[in-house]
Amino acid sequence: VLRDAIVTALTSEQSLVGRHALVTAGPTVEPLDPVRFISNHSSGKQGYAIAEALAALGARVTLVSGPVSIPAPRGVTCVKVQTAEEMLAACEQALPADIAVCTAAVSDWRASVPAGRKIKKTGDGPPALNLVENPDILATLCHHARRPRLVVGFAAETDDVRENALAKRQRKGCDWLVANDVRRGVFGADRNLVSLIDGSGIETWPEMDKSAVAGKLAERIAETFRSSTA
Amino acid sequence: VLRDAIVTALTSEQSLVGRHALVTAGPTVEPLDPVRFISNHSSGKQGYAIAEALAALGARVTLVSGPVSIPAPRGVTCVKVQTAEEMLAACEQALPADIAVCTAAVSDWRASVPAGRKIKKTGDGPPALNLVENPDILATLCHHARRPRLVVGFAAETDDVRENALAKRQRKGCDWLVANDVRRGVFGADRNLVSLIDGSGIETWPEMDKSAVAGKLAERIAETFRSSTA
Repeated sequence: VLRDAIVTALTSEQSLVGRHALVTAGPTVEPLDPVRFISNHSSGKQGYAIAEALAALGARVTLVSGPVSIPAPRGVTCVKVQTAEEMLAACEQALPADIAVCTAAVSDWRASVPAGRKIKKTGDGPPALNLVENPDILATLCHHARRPRLVVGFAAETDDVRENALAKRQRKGCDWLVANDVRRGVFGADRNLVSLIDGSGIETWPEMDKSAVAGKLAERIAETFRSSTA
Repeated sequence: VLRDAIVTALTSEQSLVGRHALVTAGPTVEPLDPVRFISNHSSGKQGYAIAEALAALGARVTLVSGPVSIPAPRGVTCVKVQTAEEMLAACEQALPADIAVCTAAVSDWRASVPAGRKIKKTGDGPPALNLVENPDILATLCHHARRPRLVVGFAAETDDVRENALAKRQRKGCDWLVANDVRRGVFGADRNLVSLIDGSGIETWPEMDKSAVAGKLAERIAETFRSSTA
């Protein structure tokens, strides 16, 4: 607690002034036809809280968000999208950025060709859904020609949280990975239990409000930029 | 307009006192794994408005609702469910009812066995989704041993609205079918364009607020019960 207080004091309020942060949040929605879709239970709360916390530290923030029911934080540029492909395009359009924090729960798959008309029940049983893999937004940003200096990924895990998260950080090529233990119904909840993985190891934070996770992460980000640059 | 006014006057305010109405609303959400699901864009607005309109006419209303972001109308018993199977069970539990109005956008299909753990990207391409057909709640109520006297279905159609709706009424066995033209982005909107199909034909209503559609439909229901019973 004392250490946190000192860190907070050192990283003064507006320590991210002049920095551009890109934050992704919420689910993506992948249409199967004009009515149906595949999606997931992301509420966007954690990502929106991070966008707000970074803005509070003075960063210019672009929030690229799937459909959620919460309002965009004040002072943040919010770009609303539906699909993973739209989210990637919006992210690339937002570059260059100093910081990218990818909290969005991007659908891994989409229908290869969404039906233009509502799929009817035919009596021949359920239709075969031809799925194709979506672009990997986090990995794309990590390997981008205009890669943000600090790229932070999020991983929602239901089992083997630490192992999956460590492997995911390597695989994606991000600097930090925040592993989210979603076994206990985090979706839509106000509290979160996360571990932060960087090049030096894994650090599990106590369970806290999503706004507190956001504040702590934003301070860490500010600290990094403070310690490594003029 | 004059006719509507006369009908409204004849079906006095509390003309459904002593009647029990079952209303389904919203989407169902069918899990693929603990994180992902199949769902649809139903906002629940039309069903919630109908529940409110029937309650305003004195009916006791049970509203069985999938996940939506709007509050239950006052004086209505609201049962929240996620899946089609849960919705059917809640409907059967609500019987007997005099009236059933099925506005819910029930997923036609669900995963045969939802994965207990989050499905991982394996590098072998997208997983095959094994879908099975969900129970047909409208048809089940229509052929139920305790069938409500008046069963009203809703059909969201993107093309051949009239033909599909006429065929659906026959196939399901409901008394009335309200065909919903969803080509123009009705989902989540406040206005609606519907046609009412009964045994004698099809009647297309002018585009109006969902609450007005609800009021008109509730008056029609009250009129039916008034004209045919002591």
